[in-house]
Amino acid sequence: MKEFFQVTPLERVLEYTTEFAATGTETVSLTEALDRILAKDVIADQNLPEFARSVVDGYVVKAASTFGATESNPGYLTVKGEVFMGRPPDFAVGPGETAYIPTGGMLPTGTDSVVMIEHTEKLDDHAIEVFKSVAPGQNVILAGEDFKESETILAAGNRIRPQEAGLLAAFGVRSVPVFNKPRVGIISTGDEIVPIDQTPSFGQLRDINSYTLSGLVTKSGGIPVMFGIVKDDYESLFTRCSQALEESDAVLLSGGSSMGTRDLTVEILSRLPHSKILVHGIPISPGKPTILAQVGGKIFWGLPGHVVSAMIVFVVVVRPFLESLAGFSQSRKGAFGIPAKLTRNLASAQGRVDYIRVRLLQKEGSLWADPILGKSGLIHTMVKADGLIAIPMNTEGLDEGVQVEVFPV
Amino acid sequence: MKEFFQVTPLERVLEYTTEFAATGTETVSLTEALDRILAKDVIADQNLPEFARSVVDGYVVKAASTFGATESNPGYLTVKGEVFMGRPPDFAVGPGETAYIPTGGMLPTGTDSVVMIEHTEKLDDHAIEVFKSVAPGQNVILAGEDFKESETILAAGNRIRPQEAGLLAAFGVRSVPVFNKPRVGIISTGDEIVPIDQTPSFGQLRDINSYTLSGLVTKSGGIPVMFGIVKDDYESLFTRCSQALEESDAVLLSGGSSMGTRDLTVEILSRLPHSKILVHGIPISPGKPTILAQVGGKIFWGLPGHVVSAMIVFVVVVRPFLESLAGFSQSRKGAFGIPAKLTRNLASAQGRVDYIRVRLLQKEGSLWADPILGKSGLIHTMVKADGLIAIPMNTEGLDEGVQVEVFPV
Repeated sequence: MKEFFQVTPLERVLEYTTEFAATGTETVSLTEALDRILAKDVIADQNLPEFARSVVDGYVVKAASTFGATESNPGYLTVKGEVFMGRPPDFAVGPGETAYIPTGGMLPTGTDSVVMIEHTEKLDDHAIEVFKSVAPGQNVILAGEDFKESETILAAGNRIRPQEAGLLAAFGVRSVPVFNKPRVGIISTGDEIVPIDQTPSFGQLRDINSYTLSGLVTKSGGIPVMFGIVKDDYESLFTRCSQALEESDAVLLSGGSSMGTRDLTVEILSRLPHSKILVHGIPISPGKPTILAQVGGKIFWGLPGHVVSAMIVFVVVVRPFLESLAGFSQSRKGAFGIPAKLTRNLASAQGRVDYIRVRLLQKEGSLWADPILGKSGLIHTMVKADGLIAIPMNTEGLDEGVQVEVFPV
Repeated sequence: MKEFFQVTPLERVLEYTTEFAATGTETVSLTEALDRILAKDVIADQNLPEFARSVVDGYVVKAASTFGATESNPGYLTVKGEVFMGRPPDFAVGPGETAYIPTGGMLPTGTDSVVMIEHTEKLDDHAIEVFKSVAPGQNVILAGEDFKESETILAAGNRIRPQEAGLLAAFGVRSVPVFNKPRVGIISTGDEIVPIDQTPSFGQLRDINSYTLSGLVTKSGGIPVMFGIVKDDYESLFTRCSQALEESDAVLLSGGSSMGTRDLTVEILSRLPHSKILVHGIPISPGKPTILAQVGGKIFWGLPGHVVSAMIVFVVVVRPFLESLAGFSQSRKGAFGIPAKLTRNLASAQGRVDYIRVRLLQKEGSLWADPILGKSGLIHTMVKADGLIAIPMNTEGLDEGVQVEVFPV
């Protein structure tokens, strides 16, 4: 029985992400952890640093010993010794006393601050003059100032950037628990599509979508698995979709821009076990004839065949699902668009969100979004583009000069 | 003989990038080419597409056959046949004639446009009514509309994003000439630094910079090679630097925030053969005590030891050099900052560019840059940051609400 489908608002489509969470985790070495998503909270097992240290080259003191010192009225301090890098000082420093300390050196007992060397003068091996007073804590990183023991240093769901890698290094975390990368099966369909190593005859085109979508999957933290090109007939399509679903966490079927193929996809989905069509049509342009289904807990996307449409649908709706599968936390998801001014008027139909390719330009001290118009079957329009802007549902267009948000592609 | 060094203005430092160009190239498969830099221009060996094709499901016509057709006064067309996907039509369509064509189908001889199926009605197997006229070229991608034969489809120096991968696929480019990734040797120095698998004693810290810098090198398109931790003495440092220079295209030595180590680095550089110190000190904060040298045509950077300083110097000055080594073209280099408003007043010293870590916030419909203040030895400040802003050389600070440009980190 053929069900009746209505387009699903974009917000509702994105709410389905919560039904597809990350499942497995694995442990990778810290050097392999870059760009992976942390799977467990990491807790500080010590203070960072464990000891107060100097951030300058200078003389370490109890701040009170310098109070009142000025250029014209220097303070006089007795030098107790020298702090060496990487070793705890074997002496204490009392009131009126000091010791030389290099950047990174550990503060001796009795001290709380460091006078920069520029503000001192050595009188002899046992005495210096100080020309400036310091406050307690000045030129020093206190024990636990970066992180305190038992604090959460990094929560699950965060992407590991270079600084997070450094943070894990600081705590000696060499094996990092991360979420598995989702495996994403990619199928191109269409009787006119040939593999890229073939010379197309008249009427045929090489398979572009397998490569654009693979790239997008990789950039979204997934592992693309190409399942090749399949003819536009029921049996071939059913077999290939079943196989791809079996071997992947999500499947992207692109092609089927003609009505016949879309009907075929719906028919196949209705025959696959434990399958439920969640979305059949989204009020976005390009990309309206997009299908989202849940098949045995896995994600199935039917994407438009036009190369630009498939890419835009990926960026707008597929990527959030892959990020959810990849364990990327909701809280950090709000990637911000880049504010820019629109270079020209843009018309738009009401009742749908229009996505427009733009190039970014810097002129007159501002950043401008310059629309690249062109049919959604033309790959060069995406090659020229730096990002996308959205014209909201209930507007008839945007005026030149208004501020828009650009989402990089 | 010890030379006298002056700080080098930032603009001058960046001009040295031209002295370090990409050298080698290699060929990788298209599926491995993502994020690599194209080493040779790619020329179109055919039109894309090679034939005019429909972008909708409908009836293909010579536009003139539909002129004057309206809802109330439909045009009448004789159906000559049907276009099948992936095959050239074996019939021509004359004036007053048409044929069914699916999305992606090749236009028959004699046609130039397609009437969408919604604007037609089938009368019988041999005739349809058309309710809307079309213009020549409407609902069609013309032969060569995406790219024309012998046009440059992608120039050397471009980074291969998913859309560029798709473009190469369209032309059957399976082996992609790309520049070699630069190998970047990373050395941490400091008597207080221990490897991350050791538990630091009092006065010691684990090596963070090797991991933050490795991550940054990877994200900049290079291959990080860790040369470990080296003690702060002449012989060890000389030996390790020589080895790293031998095996890498560029070397990053971090540490040496104390004056003694900086002097040591300069001494070593002056003893290395074919070495020339180009920069000794840059008027930026953090990062002033940065050293840039050319050693036998290779790049040597002496970076500050504080973790935040080393990262900021990398982003501001090291990365452009690695991009140059990686063959990334100048023209695409102008990565735009993200415009945002500053949440608070920021003071700054004149005579240097101050880099401030910021977090991005969306509020009141605008994007705001919220400064994260804190000493440059505290890694948590970089973990909280989304980007950096620069306070220019000759200003005393920035006021709350002014527009700043945020460069992601």
